[in-house]
Amino acid sequence: MSRDALFQQATAALGCSFEGEIRIGGNYVPLLRDGETLYLSGQVPRVGSEVVVTGRAGADVSLAEAQRAAKICVLRALALLQRELGSLERVRQILRVTVYVQCTQDFTQQSEVADGASGLLYAILDAAGGHTRTAVGVLQLPKNATVELDLIAAVA
Amino acid sequence: MSRDALFQQATAALGCSFEGEIRIGGNYVPLLRDGETLYLSGQVPRVGSEVVVTGRAGADVSLAEAQRAAKICVLRALALLQRELGSLERVRQILRVTVYVQCTQDFTQQSEVADGASGLLYAILDAAGGHTRTAVGVLQLPKNATVELDLIAAVA
Amino acid sequence: MSRDALFQQATAALGCSFEGEIRIGGNYVPLLRDGETLYLSGQVPRVGSEVVVTGRAGADVSLAEAQRAAKICVLRALALLQRELGSLERVRQILRVTVYVQCTQDFTQQSEVADGASGLLYAILDAAGGHTRTAVGVLQLPKNATVELDLIAAVA
Repeated sequence: MSRDALFQQATAALGCSFEGEIRIGGNYVPLLRDGETLYLSGQVPRVGSEVVVTGRAGADVSLAEAQRAAKICVLRALALLQRELGSLERVRQILRVTVYVQCTQDFTQQSEVADGASGLLYAILDAAGGHTRTAVGVLQLPKNATVELDLIAAVA
Repeated sequence: MSRDALFQQATAALGCSFEGEIRIGGNYVPLLRDGETLYLSGQVPRVGSEVVVTGRAGADVSLAEAQRAAKICVLRALALLQRELGSLERVRQILRVTVYVQCTQDFTQQSEVADGASGLLYAILDAAGGHTRTAVGVLQLPKNATVELDLIAAVA
Repeated sequence: MSRDALFQQATAALGCSFEGEIRIGGNYVPLLRDGETLYLSGQVPRVGSEVVVTGRAGADVSLAEAQRAAKICVLRALALLQRELGSLERVRQILRVTVYVQCTQDFTQQSEVADGASGLLYAILDAAGGHTRTAVGVLQLPKNATVELDLIAAVA
């Protein structure tokens, strides 16, 4: 199956669609290309105009819900890459992913939350989805999002 | 008006000056160039030797004050770029900006704070100031700064 | 003394060894090379299978202990670079270091914590260890680690 078909399957499985405008929340751009390097802005789990997973992991948000947030964030990033490149087949490598988790002071499963996003990268991009990663627990995020994720990718 | 003149105007409007030494707070360098890529260290709103906006957004620091902090951080970064390159005219693109906001657990306007910095990048650099961005809310920052901001730029 | 010998000396001084597997805590890779650029995943102060410095700077963890955590993180990163490149002599420059410190809401010495890592970079790599840096204070980290550190390096 092509990467674009796998992407379509993953968005459908989460009940999401990124067909229309991909909104951002401020005065910046969602993606910039510099040579073969693509920088993606921080993505919150927004579908359409709504942030669909909000609140604090470890309190009002379960691990499974936080992982779902991370999946939506990374699918938004892939949707932006797909639009920029025409097809996800042109992604050479995901180089770096940073995952910020809004959590309680005792919540230490930031890596497990981030694995939600990482698993999708491998599932959709195979070896090209292998990436370096940093996951941290922060006090708050824009729009009370549970997760924010940014990444750097290389184009073929 | 040249970018350098616009920069001068913006620093004057904020009542700041970055003429003398631009201090950093540790054992590292403020800027590194690697080919056409410039990495800038995290900037706090320091003018001279004093961090001029401290405290927590959402509690002791208003949104407007936090935005002022973000503006000072980004002007410091531009001052460093100007020194390195001779002129801001040589900035090809601001590629990536990360904004860390010291905030309360209920403060969700990290993007609005970061817009203070982003607006200045557009105002001074025009299209070259367009950038990808990540904004998050953190528990504390060095010297009790309200905002810390780092960036990656490309040189022409 | 060679960089590799200095590295060996520093790990011995901290009572650490990174001879065996360098474990990571999730579904990603520890290091990726893109041309001359090397991305390293976020490192916690893990030695073998154990995170050896846990807890909150400013409360249960002293500044000296947090600095020790930062040192172990950066030595792990150097161990990964050494394995990838065969020798630390091939590191051209450490470009960017980001240091996340798990801390109390009043702890403002994130830069001092990060200096633990920065000092080792200079001690082992000399001028090639000079780097840009961002240090922030976060609410939690994976496995309750006191410090997490990631970096970008350039290879000769």
